[in-house]
Amino acid sequence: MASTDKPDPEQGKEVTPPPKPESSSVASPTAASYFSVDVTLRVLLFASTLTAIVVLVTSKQTVRGRVPIPLVAKFDHSPAFIYFLVALSVAGLYSIITTLASISVILKPEFSTKFLLHFAFWDVLILGLVASATGTAGGVAYIGLKGNDHVKWPKVCSTFDKFCRHLAGSLAVSLFASVLLVLLVWFSVFSIHKKLPK
Amino acid sequence: MASTDKPDPEQGKEVTPPPKPESSSVASPTAASYFSVDVTLRVLLFASTLTAIVVLVTSKQTVRGRVPIPLVAKFDHSPAFIYFLVALSVAGLYSIITTLASISVILKPEFSTKFLLHFAFWDVLILGLVASATGTAGGVAYIGLKGNDHVKWPKVCSTFDKFCRHLAGSLAVSLFASVLLVLLVWFSVFSIHKKLPK
Repeated sequence: MASTDKPDPEQGKEVTPPPKPESSSVASPTAASYFSVDVTLRVLLFASTLTAIVVLVTSKQTVRGRVPIPLVAKFDHSPAFIYFLVALSVAGLYSIITTLASISVILKPEFSTKFLLHFAFWDVLILGLVASATGTAGGVAYIGLKGNDHVKWPKVCSTFDKFCRHLAGSLAVSLFASVLLVLLVWFSVFSIHKKLPK
Repeated sequence: MASTDKPDPEQGKEVTPPPKPESSSVASPTAASYFSVDVTLRVLLFASTLTAIVVLVTSKQTVRGRVPIPLVAKFDHSPAFIYFLVALSVAGLYSIITTLASISVILKPEFSTKFLLHFAFWDVLILGLVASATGTAGGVAYIGLKGNDHVKWPKVCSTFDKFCRHLAGSLAVSLFASVLLVLLVWFSVFSIHKKLPK
């Protein structure tokens, strides 16, 4: 048994990496490059949620038609768009926090596995939030675009063209954010899987 | 080096498990119990999607009011509910396939890691689908319940009470299915993480 604890000294010099904490021994050579991809995705997530929020909030449109009172369309006239705004804000804040966390892992790679696990857990929740909010806002926006004759809900977008263009843009960017979150979960799962011994 | 390949015969008898493929050496003692939880969650997912589909499809309501023509409410009067039905059907089919796959892992545990990885990848996509469809249908159903005065969309649920009760039930069960999918992703990620060397 003693011979297994002391490997051949020449061979030991060739193979043994410089001393580092044991938990990072499997992953550390590539942890920095892993997390630079992670940081890129999270910065993109922040940019897309911020864009979607700005486009949504600036969607207000006032129309002066034949009626004496001007008609106003604002996103907060529908609870669906308020939920959409809240979900995007949560995702935006989350992306800031996790970008910082991900940068901290690049500086201290020995905690990479723990962070990947936490990222995967939370990313899934935020994905559920953003996907459902995109669906909610999209469903209401579609009624605005097409109306629904069965229940006599008239079209809105024929009157409020700018409002609906903003909504469509915000929804498209939010869909992109959902795709980013799926990629982030895949990335975390794949990175944890990569660390398994062959 | 030769001594490391031949361990002490007495100790080898005590510790070494019965011969099995190398890839399962980390996980096999608990793989069956892991996957029995996985199978349970997937069967629950199937049951909940099937329930949601049945409750949605049977929501048709005909109301004979003061008007000569009877009013009919059906889920396929709204594209949102058709999308909801399609998403639930995809999730239901997916749950059948992955339940069978998960059972096959209990019988052949040496592929457990590969299956966990694939499950995590696909579960995330199905979660995005079900969450967005639940959001879409929920957003439209909420307008049916409350109406929207700003754009003159009248309430529907005051007339079609049974229709709206069915929708609410279907949405609640679908929300439960989304939670199950989040748990399934968490479970896969956690199980892969558990296999990492300490």
